[in-house]
Parts: sequence; structure tokens; C-alpha cells
Amino acid sequence: MNAIKFKNNRLFYIDQTALPVKEVWKECLRLEDGWSAIKKLEVRGAPLIGVFAAYCLYIWSKGPVSSGKDFMRRFARAVVYLRECRPTAVNLAWALKRVMLAVEANQDKPVTQLREIILNEAQAIHDEDVLLCARIGEYGNKLIKSGDNILTHCNAGFLATSGDGTALSVIYAAHAAGKKIHVFADETRPLLQGARLTAWELSRNNVPVTLICDNMAAVLMAKDKIDKIIVGADRITAAGDVANKIGTYSVAVNAAYHKIPFYVAAPFSTFDLTLKSGDEIPIEERAHDEVRTVLGKVTIAPKKVNAYNPSFDVTPAKLVTAIITDRGVVYPPFKQNIKKLIGQ
Amino acid sequence: MNAIKFKNNRLFYIDQTALPVKEVWKECLRLEDGWSAIKKLEVRGAPLIGVFAAYCLYIWSKGPVSSGKDFMRRFARAVVYLRECRPTAVNLAWALKRVMLAVEANQDKPVTQLREIILNEAQAIHDEDVLLCARIGEYGNKLIKSGDNILTHCNAGFLATSGDGTALSVIYAAHAAGKKIHVFADETRPLLQGARLTAWELSRNNVPVTLICDNMAAVLMAKDKIDKIIVGADRITAAGDVANKIGTYSVAVNAAYHKIPFYVAAPFSTFDLTLKSGDEIPIEERAHDEVRTVLGKVTIAPKKVNAYNPSFDVTPAKLVTAIITDRGVVYPPFKQNIKKLIGQ
Repeated sequence: MNAIKFKNNRLFYIDQTALPVKEVWKECLRLEDGWSAIKKLEVRGAPLIGVFAAYCLYIWSKGPVSSGKDFMRRFARAVVYLRECRPTAVNLAWALKRVMLAVEANQDKPVTQLREIILNEAQAIHDEDVLLCARIGEYGNKLIKSGDNILTHCNAGFLATSGDGTALSVIYAAHAAGKKIHVFADETRPLLQGARLTAWELSRNNVPVTLICDNMAAVLMAKDKIDKIIVGADRITAAGDVANKIGTYSVAVNAAYHKIPFYVAAPFSTFDLTLKSGDEIPIEERAHDEVRTVLGKVTIAPKKVNAYNPSFDVTPAKLVTAIITDRGVVYPPFKQNIKKLIGQ
Repeated sequence: MNAIKFKNNRLFYIDQTALPVKEVWKECLRLEDGWSAIKKLEVRGAPLIGVFAAYCLYIWSKGPVSSGKDFMRRFARAVVYLRECRPTAVNLAWALKRVMLAVEANQDKPVTQLREIILNEAQAIHDEDVLLCARIGEYGNKLIKSGDNILTHCNAGFLATSGDGTALSVIYAAHAAGKKIHVFADETRPLLQGARLTAWELSRNNVPVTLICDNMAAVLMAKDKIDKIIVGADRITAAGDVANKIGTYSVAVNAAYHKIPFYVAAPFSTFDLTLKSGDEIPIEERAHDEVRTVLGKVTIAPKKVNAYNPSFDVTPAKLVTAIITDRGVVYPPFKQNIKKLIGQ
């Protein structure tokens, strides 16, 4: 199962805003389509938007240009345009930079060749993402016992990556290994990725799942119904502070209070070692109507009521038990151990 | 502003499930209407359902009976019928018992007189509730400083009582006293009473309010944006354990972690001194479709996905800073101080 497809030189994606009611595939025909798909969360999940954005650059590169110089100038603009679409997840900037470095190293070559270079790099990022997900699953699976009840927040599954996911890759690996596990999925207001995407993809893959409202996780913890928590990440600092979907921090505080292990699963590309602390991570604020309505379909508060809608929050390293990466599991002290594993 | 009206011997109520989109008044013509209004949460809020249920007994009593004995037998059945409609809030059972004791003390009197007794008792409970709310507001106001940012969960306002509310009575009293306060209202999934009712009634009464998703409260606490938390209660035990709307416990854990005062506001009728601990409080579980959909209007997860939907949770006394009652503010040690103030 895939959230995006690159086939016959064309880029397709599932419109995740239509899930779980409909499975709608759309084609990205222009750079602006890609930007809009990311902005509207039709394509979302930190690793996936990195892969998708790299392909978007290829789609862009197929357009007409007057010269190699013109190509390079407009290419640089396209990179910035996509990068600023969503500020919090670092994988987007990371993937764009990777394509950019490959192009810049070859900027004297003919445009037809630069196009090939972009495509090759996008495909390399894509293939690598599949592999990184699988490795996260392998490392994470070692932490899971048969009988575990695992809570997750938002969606860090195959809909968030081009592979099996990050947090959910661990769950899929444990399930495939025959371990009897059960997942509690936080619905994840305001945009309900936990309900619409996680509960949907887990049940589709026959992993036992129970959907809860975000505010129910704490009482399940108090009743000893949750053994472990695994979430994804949008950016992780050098100190191990983790930006992830809004609500993650509340789960982490509750996990600490109830002494339940809190794991974060993410590939190396989610780490941003240029940032020392979580305070430096830019947090995207989205439209207030996402809170005043549900998916724009039901009004739950009058338009004149003020709202607050940060899309992410930062969980400080002290609340994180370990970070499951494609290179192994990182335990505290995070500063030293992240440097050792990721900072090469 | 009132959530129910008793006028010309007829009982009317705002259908709270239609708020904030429409203000629909309905009439309770039969006992079954009252039961259904409470069950469907058209009338909700622990103190309000007590008052409303007492009036429902009067509406019932107007029906034909063959004898005094017949009246008493059917009256007892009506009491049980209403009492079992919602199990968690104790005010419902408390109000019904109060009417029942008044009737039983006079059971040899003619039916016409018994009807008057029921009506008088319902009106006494109603008048008393207005007064209790006002007193809670007075006592609670002393705890509020100008400049405070106050978080509340669910709705404990005039829509939850027949007066100004419990938690919101404190807020209204502080606002009326000219203190500059600002409220953060948790939307309160699954039924969104915080968004639909609290944000609506506060903005209607010109109290500055910001609506948030339940999972955003923790990060506001971490950013020092919340000075105090005030919530209502559905039942409070002799030890000070508090049953309230699902999600309250998560707020309380986060409040403790961030060292923010966590206040509960409730009249004496919310205390159930027959219960030693919160484990004994019956917790209503509601239909899973309340979680799989939003207000039955938007499907957010496939029907086959399992869900969990406890309507309440229990916050242990150790997480409660103080309980604001109509008789004064109760501080720890709760067991002794609740007994002193309430257990007379």
C-alpha cells in the first residue's frame, strides 16, 4: 500500500483529506498542485512530504525553460516555494536540499541531464525512505512484547511515509512477527488524522485498534490499559526535543505521570542538529476555522469566538524514553547519543 | 438567561444539542419526553438535570390516576425510571429522592395535594439551585485575580444549572466584579460541550474566551498561559475524588505537572458521602458512534473500527487544589474538611 505513486513519469497521490470516506487519487501536474497538496494536507506526514516534494521538483523541471541559467534560477525559486509551504517538519527542507545539492554539483550540464539528476535523486530519496521505515520497524519491534497495548497519536503510518511508516512501522513489524498487540489511536483533533488515517490503515491491515478521543488517553493510562506509547516526529533537535502533532506533549506528560514508556520513531532525516533546543523549532499555526468547525463540515462554535490552532507542539527530551531510528534505538543522554548515531 | 423554564404549569427547555447553531425551545409534555431529553443530552449538566427531573415528576403527576395507592405505586416507578437514565451525576438521584421523601411524608393526602407537594418541591430545588450557583460564584471569585487566564473543560455554566453555573459562576462573578479575565475553553470531545455551549455562553455574555482542542491545554500550561483551572463536577466522594466529564483527569494530571491550581466548583448536592472512593462511582459509557462521528454529522472512522466512549472520568483528590462549594471553599485534607462542611 502506498500514499504516492510515481509511474510513467507522472506523480499521483491519495488525497488524504478525503479518507476514510473515499480513496481519491489525484495527479500532480504542476508545481503549484504539489504546493497546494502539501498545504492542504492532502499529502502529509513528515517523511512523505519530503519524498513528494522531491518528485514535485521533477514535475516542475519538465516545463519549458529558455536556458540552463534560466533553469537554475527558476529551480532555486521552486525549492524555496515548496520549502516554505509547511515550516515545522524538517524532512521537507532536508529532501529539497538534497535534490538542490545534486543539481548544483552539476549545474553546467545540459537541462535534459539536470532533469534526470532531479528524478534520480527523488527516486533515491523514495527508495531510501522505504528502507528507513523497514529498519525503524525492525529496531522498534525488539521493544514490543506480545500482549502490549500501544497508544499512538496522529498518523505515522504508510500514509505518512513512502514505506510502512515510523511509529506504525514498529506496530506492523510486531504484528507481522506474530505478537498479539492492540493499538489505541488518539483521534487527533483538529484534523483527526488518528481517526481518519491511523484507525483506517490499521484496521485495513488487520491490526486490532480502538479509537479514542484525545482526552481519554490519560484515564486509560490510569487504568493500566496502556503499556507503551509510540509516536512519530516532525523535527528532533540535537538535545532530543521532539516536535510532533499537537497533543503529543499532553500524551508525554501523562505518560511520565503514569510511568509508561514514551517512544518516538523517526528516520535520521527528521533530526535537525542545527537546533539546540525545542524552543527554536518553528511551529506552524493554522486557520482558526479548523478548530471552530470539524473538517469544515460541522460548525461547533460561532465564527466570532476566538480560537488557537498550533499544528505542532514540542515534547522536551526529558519526557522521551527513547528514539527509535533507522540506525538503532537512541537512549538518554540524548545529546551525546544522538551525536554519536546521527551526527556523522 | 435560563436553560429551562417553568411557566403556566408547563415545562420548557432549550435543546442543547442544537446549540450553538440554533436556539430551539422544546416542551416536556410527558415523563418520557423528560427521560429522552436527559438521555440525549438535550438537557445536561449535573445540577440542571436534578432540577429538570423534579419538574418532570410534576409533569408526570398531572396524568390520570385511579387512586392514591395507584398514584404512589406509579410515582415510585417514575422516580426509578428517571434516576436510571444517567448514572454518573448524583444530583439527579439527589433531587428525585428529595421529591420522593416529600411525597412519602404525605402519602395519605389526596392526589391533588400530592401534585402540589411535588411542584412545590421542584420549585424549591429550582430556587435553591439559583442561590447555590450565586454562592459558588461569590466564594470562587475570591480566588480569582485580575489578569488571570482560566482554563475550563466541558460546560458548567448557566446551561448546566438553573443559575449562573458552577465553574462558570465563578468566572461570571469575577467578570462582573470588573476583573480582567480570559477563559480558555476545552472543546470537550466527543460531544463538544466546551465549544458548543461554554464558548457560546461566555461570548454571549462578553467574557473573553478562546476555544482550543482538548489536546492543546498542556502546551498552553507549558507556555505559562494558564493561571488557574476551574471545572464542574458530576459526583464528589467523601474523600474528595471528583467524577466529571471525560478529559477532566487529563487536565488535572497536566495541571499537577505544571504546578497550576486545579479547582472544582460544585454545590453540596454533588457530594455523595456514601462513597469512600472514586472507584465506586458508576461511569456511564455511551454509544461508540459518538466517537466514530462528530455529532452524528461527519464520519471520521469506518463503522467497523472499535471505539471507547466513557462519558466521565474520576480525578483523585490528590490532584485537586480545592473545591469551591456554596458553603465555602474546601481545602485538603478533604476527608475531614468535606465532612465538616457538607456532612451535616
